[in-house]
Amino acid sequence: MSLRIPFETVKETVKKALLNAGLSEEQAETCATIHAQSSADGVESHGLNRVPRFVEYIGKGWINLKGKPELVGAKGAVENYDGQLGIGITNALFCADRAVELAKEHGIGCVALRNTTHWMRGGTYAWRMAEAGFAGMSWINSESCMPLWGSDEKSVGNNPFCMAVPRDDGPIVLDMAMSQYAYGKLGVYRLAGKQLPYPGGFDKDGNLTSDPGAIEETMRILPTGYWKGSGMAIVLDLAAAIMANGNTGIDQAADKLGSCGGCCQIFIAYDPYMFASKEEVQEKVNRRVDAAHKAHPVHEGGKVTCPGERTVATRKKSMEEGVVVDEAVWEQVCAIAEGNVNIKDIASK
Amino acid sequence: MSLRIPFETVKETVKKALLNAGLSEEQAETCATIHAQSSADGVESHGLNRVPRFVEYIGKGWINLKGKPELVGAKGAVENYDGQLGIGITNALFCADRAVELAKEHGIGCVALRNTTHWMRGGTYAWRMAEAGFAGMSWINSESCMPLWGSDEKSVGNNPFCMAVPRDDGPIVLDMAMSQYAYGKLGVYRLAGKQLPYPGGFDKDGNLTSDPGAIEETMRILPTGYWKGSGMAIVLDLAAAIMANGNTGIDQAADKLGSCGGCCQIFIAYDPYMFASKEEVQEKVNRRVDAAHKAHPVHEGGKVTCPGERTVATRKKSMEEGVVVDEAVWEQVCAIAEGNVNIKDIASK
Repeated sequence: MSLRIPFETVKETVKKALLNAGLSEEQAETCATIHAQSSADGVESHGLNRVPRFVEYIGKGWINLKGKPELVGAKGAVENYDGQLGIGITNALFCADRAVELAKEHGIGCVALRNTTHWMRGGTYAWRMAEAGFAGMSWINSESCMPLWGSDEKSVGNNPFCMAVPRDDGPIVLDMAMSQYAYGKLGVYRLAGKQLPYPGGFDKDGNLTSDPGAIEETMRILPTGYWKGSGMAIVLDLAAAIMANGNTGIDQAADKLGSCGGCCQIFIAYDPYMFASKEEVQEKVNRRVDAAHKAHPVHEGGKVTCPGERTVATRKKSMEEGVVVDEAVWEQVCAIAEGNVNIKDIASK
Repeated sequence: MSLRIPFETVKETVKKALLNAGLSEEQAETCATIHAQSSADGVESHGLNRVPRFVEYIGKGWINLKGKPELVGAKGAVENYDGQLGIGITNALFCADRAVELAKEHGIGCVALRNTTHWMRGGTYAWRMAEAGFAGMSWINSESCMPLWGSDEKSVGNNPFCMAVPRDDGPIVLDMAMSQYAYGKLGVYRLAGKQLPYPGGFDKDGNLTSDPGAIEETMRILPTGYWKGSGMAIVLDLAAAIMANGNTGIDQAADKLGSCGGCCQIFIAYDPYMFASKEEVQEKVNRRVDAAHKAHPVHEGGKVTCPGERTVATRKKSMEEGVVVDEAVWEQVCAIAEGNVNIKDIASK
């Protein structure tokens, strides 16, 4: 069952849970804010729902709470950091902000981060760069969780790719994993007794299927656009690893460090107001977005939206009416916050 | 019908055709090489097959043969050029090479090109950056040719996105349009009387279909991964336009300037050997690619390949046995080369 809880209550509760898990005041404040914002934006999977797993990883010693981005190389508009297996969110925020600083100086800035941990919602960092007034791009290479096209075993990460454009009414932000559906989404459909709207993987007989349970069984999730998402996933993996001088997906051992433990992340920021005034750029962006809105809809009364636009509406509603939380997850996080759970005993679902 | 013609013959014939169309010796040499290489790599659609249309565009005055990239802005690791509606290939090659030069100095380099024309095969420039030893990324925003998700009319470009990683045995190169299939591919399947392997668009009743003719009729081609490719297409469009300070897809008038007339293209190069030796980087790339090869195949005896690998094999065969050309197209290009056609009369198919 879902509840709506005020944003500040969600944030403060997550913060208490994270303080109990050993984070510093500053770390807990930052991470709680990001988790609560993700839920407020409608990305519960990497917001509140991810808190127990984050705490579980800390309990297992998979996240180094003392780890911080350490500069290991720099040249011109590029900086390379070692994340020391620190907290994924704080590491990634630091790097996104550094990319913006580099872009202020060099027009474009790139921060390549290696040896970090799960950054939770991928879009967080592209949103952040866009909200600072920069075009932003970021991606991650994860451990293998999806079959490459032509294979039936997990052989590449789903490697989310994010790209954002600043806009006064809210940035336009792509946050796109290379699998057609996330595993989390399959579970949501299965529990609701629903079929996926389009095929999302292969069943045990090797047929494309829209049955979420059949895909969870084989773990043969479908790359976005078949061979295309598969190809993009492996190129993103390689590019992240060589740019950050870190691990590819096959060097990441999820059984030893959890999902994305020891991964690479790339952050690129670009100053869009170098060659034109902010007014000109914003006028152009708004005109393009308006044209999308006016594209003739498939269904009468329908409206095309650009990536990120619905997020702004969801956020507004969350702030007014409360953040949607899953009751069971909320109870689990509250228990951690109240100190009723030994964090070594947490097993996330 | 298909023929195999020696590479040098293809190149020299295209060169003569382009000289007849008004290109300079140097322009014709460069463009003929790229068109012949694209066909040799198996990308006939943007190789030889595209020559008549290129000549048609010249005849119509849609390409400014005197146009060259003109620097209109620069800051740090970024340069912004106006392509003056010059030849798409030579403009884009210049910018890819400049991105590499900027990356040598700043670690990363970005060239944002506006007001240029069709670059033909998108992958050409990522290949070029990778062959120079750099990780490369490039994309273009084209006029609307695909419905945005939720719309049934053409409302966004298919905006190919390319990304390449250098590798001694041949780079790994993604060259991915945001439509599941190109219009050209639909025609190939229709002429062969075949269905597409997976749905590629919608029929007149609004149903997803694998019938290429039904999709050509509605022009409702499917974005790669449904809503995902649609979202990526519009973000690529916006990002290209604001980075290059040029047109979005809706400002491009294909009826006045042809496909991609006045578009933007972005070229980003990154030095992967800044923070590690070439040997270390190449070992990592090869190990990752080998792991992909060893992924358990769906079909016994099958083998997973990475993007670009088959291209190298196709190229080798083309160089040994000749480049595959469509007989009708070959005759048309030969006729232009022999001066038997008034270029004002060419109508490409």
